[in-house]
Amino acid sequence: MNETNHAFLLSDRPEGEPDRDDFDLIEREVPDPGPGEAVVRTLFLSVDPYMRGRMDAGESYADPWAVGEPLQGAVVGEVVAESGTGLEEGAVVAGPGEWAEYVAVSGHRLQPVDPDVAPISTSLGVLGMPGRTAYFGVREIAKPRAGDTVVVTGAAGAVGSAAGQIAALQGANVVGFAGSDRKVEVVEEEFGFDAGINYATTDDYAGAIDEVAPDGVDVYFDNVGGPITDAVFSRLALDARVAVCGQISQYNAEEAPTGPRKLGTLIEKRASVEGFLVSDFQPRFEEATRTISAWVESGVLQYRETVVEDIENAPDAFLGLFSGENVGKQLVRVGERER
Amino acid sequence: MNETNHAFLLSDRPEGEPDRDDFDLIEREVPDPGPGEAVVRTLFLSVDPYMRGRMDAGESYADPWAVGEPLQGAVVGEVVAESGTGLEEGAVVAGPGEWAEYVAVSGHRLQPVDPDVAPISTSLGVLGMPGRTAYFGVREIAKPRAGDTVVVTGAAGAVGSAAGQIAALQGANVVGFAGSDRKVEVVEEEFGFDAGINYATTDDYAGAIDEVAPDGVDVYFDNVGGPITDAVFSRLALDARVAVCGQISQYNAEEAPTGPRKLGTLIEKRASVEGFLVSDFQPRFEEATRTISAWVESGVLQYRETVVEDIENAPDAFLGLFSGENVGKQLVRVGERER
Repeated sequence: MNETNHAFLLSDRPEGEPDRDDFDLIEREVPDPGPGEAVVRTLFLSVDPYMRGRMDAGESYADPWAVGEPLQGAVVGEVVAESGTGLEEGAVVAGPGEWAEYVAVSGHRLQPVDPDVAPISTSLGVLGMPGRTAYFGVREIAKPRAGDTVVVTGAAGAVGSAAGQIAALQGANVVGFAGSDRKVEVVEEEFGFDAGINYATTDDYAGAIDEVAPDGVDVYFDNVGGPITDAVFSRLALDARVAVCGQISQYNAEEAPTGPRKLGTLIEKRASVEGFLVSDFQPRFEEATRTISAWVESGVLQYRETVVEDIENAPDAFLGLFSGENVGKQLVRVGERER
Repeated sequence: MNETNHAFLLSDRPEGEPDRDDFDLIEREVPDPGPGEAVVRTLFLSVDPYMRGRMDAGESYADPWAVGEPLQGAVVGEVVAESGTGLEEGAVVAGPGEWAEYVAVSGHRLQPVDPDVAPISTSLGVLGMPGRTAYFGVREIAKPRAGDTVVVTGAAGAVGSAAGQIAALQGANVVGFAGSDRKVEVVEEEFGFDAGINYATTDDYAGAIDEVAPDGVDVYFDNVGGPITDAVFSRLALDARVAVCGQISQYNAEEAPTGPRKLGTLIEKRASVEGFLVSDFQPRFEEATRTISAWVESGVLQYRETVVEDIENAPDAFLGLFSGENVGKQLVRVGERER
């Protein structure tokens, strides 16, 4: 077994935009498994926008990270030691881990991952939390109908890319906002959106929507918030539905964001807006994984991953989420499979 | 028949806050009824916040008023002449009229009003559009459950006062925001809200909510928007529902209101926000009127009216809606019944 175990601690709570100094790389011992635990060697580490909220002290739906303590997050890895878990050494598992090369986890919190079904990294992406978020957000909250115009923000990201495709499976026309020409191309060519809008090269978001969706927006799947969301609100169609999935543009705001002053639009359009969390759908995760797996296998659902190499670069991978560095699911490769 | 017929025209489209000069009082002839029409002598004229939108040129759910043309609005009055409508002279009717002493209306657009059931003015208030708005908004959109904490803004107004009481009928604890100590007293004593908050004497709306609703807000019936709504959003409870009925604080804004930046709250609280228009419930108006009438007769539902005398003062009655002059439904008495 490798002797070193690099891990990141939260060194500081950021005000506004976090930076590299908020993360502290340490070396600590590889843990031994306690009773019922497995020691997992991290292969891929997931970094996700929601983690920004865990850097703050306030209670939210995810517990705050503690200053001076390891950063928690989902990992996929290989069992290297265990004590009474029934897991075999070398088994690939996914579950709650840390930003670390090795972590000890209760056996019952680990899900087996079959490397023959799909690349193991997908258990953190299209077959994991982001894919399930898109699945339930589209099917249970946004509920697009055939012929609806659906706008998705963060369309090149892990959740948005799946959300748009799942909406298209319901027969909707899908428009995606993304932050570069390269991303727009991926959104249109690989993910099959009907149209992509590069928000980085226009200030007139509403005008851009008008060009591709002259009859307005029936469903809005919002991952970003801010001025793009303001523009989409101004273009909602009658009986529109808005699924609020994420608000990444606001997570680093130093001031509390402005209030929801544009609700008058909702009256005029009899529109509804609903926030949701994928964790509320836990009892149906198996259904989601089964369905999404079938879509991925048959090629109906495309996904992309952006992999940063080496645990040392995990903070950069995380920070890159806010500057839009990633296409699809952002991962950190921490190790290689040994067998 | 009276020879004069005073009427108001829209003289100008206001930018921001409207003023008295935007209304032009003229004298014109009393109309003769065309075929199928009745001439109604206005007894009460309704002024409502939504009319602010009709002063603007843009299309909305209500058609814009035309500059130089009479102001349209609901009236209750007496039939003084008719041609083939089947209505009797002297019958009391409610329907679409104008800010005028006499108006010719198609017979089929007029509803008979029975003066023995309730004061005829209530057909513009608790038994009319405002009462129905509260009825459907609470029962079909906000859907409070027993034990829920419901916050109502504009609680002393025509819609808010009814909405809070209808929510209380479902077993909810009801908190109302109003703009003076006098209004808060009416809200608590007459309308039976569990608590009233005077927003004019505090800036800390969220703190005021915490005092009376420490477990948060399950249902928010929003008539006003703006900073109070921002504060309520910060206090939404899990699975909260927001019914967006009106946004009166924003109607006179010269700049388009800021976008809905606080949607992150909806994610954390899995909350939903829905706009609605009472006109969509037209097929069920009879049900609403029947139910509300029974509540009013049995004393379960209280209402208040603020009556301004004389058509000349109609613009002041209207403008007073935005400075909070009224308690309950704001009416203009244009004439007295003659028989």
